[in-house]
Amino acid sequence: MASPVVRFRIDFADHAAVGPGKIALLEAVHASGSLSQAARNLGMSYRRAWLLIASLNASFRKPVARAVTGGRGGGGATLTEFGVELITSYRALDRDISSIAARHLRPIVKAVTKASRVKPAVARRSFAHKGI
Amino acid sequence: MASPVVRFRIDFADHAAVGPGKIALLEAVHASGSLSQAARNLGMSYRRAWLLIASLNASFRKPVARAVTGGRGGGGATLTEFGVELITSYRALDRDISSIAARHLRPIVKAVTKASRVKPAVARRSFAHKGI
Repeated sequence: MASPVVRFRIDFADHAAVGPGKIALLEAVHASGSLSQAARNLGMSYRRAWLLIASLNASFRKPVARAVTGGRGGGGATLTEFGVELITSYRALDRDISSIAARHLRPIVKAVTKASRVKPAVARRSFAHKGI
Repeated sequence: MASPVVRFRIDFADHAAVGPGKIALLEAVHASGSLSQAARNLGMSYRRAWLLIASLNASFRKPVARAVTGGRGGGGATLTEFGVELITSYRALDRDISSIAARHLRPIVKAVTKASRVKPAVARRSFAHKGI
């Protein structure tokens, strides 16, 4: 029986929200040391990646990332200590949420229909409204 | 200092997802005993409310709600035992998530900028991309 997957975002304030997209971007910057490479890896535009980082930097008193200059073809990006802390806290929360969700939702999970058992007409109706 | 608000949805399977909208609808049906009244209370169309309930009923082996006939102006809706269990499990998970989020995110919450401290230009950029 598959575990339920919980997708979440955190609203810290009206102007400060963090969800899986921003965290994935921070992780990609951390791994590649470059905002443009991180954007490419995630299939998003450089502009969108830049705006997401700018939004994070405006949300908190400490920046999450900063530009690094120097070297040929320089112009990389690196996470600050706070940026790394944000990833770490989010992932720790993610792990705990998965674990308590599995516990709370056990009786519900048992009642999920198998996709193959859903009648085609019902499945069409259901898939048409996926994501609602 | 405000607590972070965690918004979440649960993907049980490709064809079975539950989020705050469906739970609010179930709660409104439970409170009003009527799908059309529940839809009105939530400002959604009857059609949309009906499709959400149909999607839930197709997601699980047990229905979450059923039509009730009888009485003048009859045609109400009532939650099944399973529908009530789904609300209860979701709300219990919600409470636990809020509590562990507050714990995990304490150092992050401390770093959130006060809205009044965000420069107008930055705020405009940030609000334009709210919800990303």
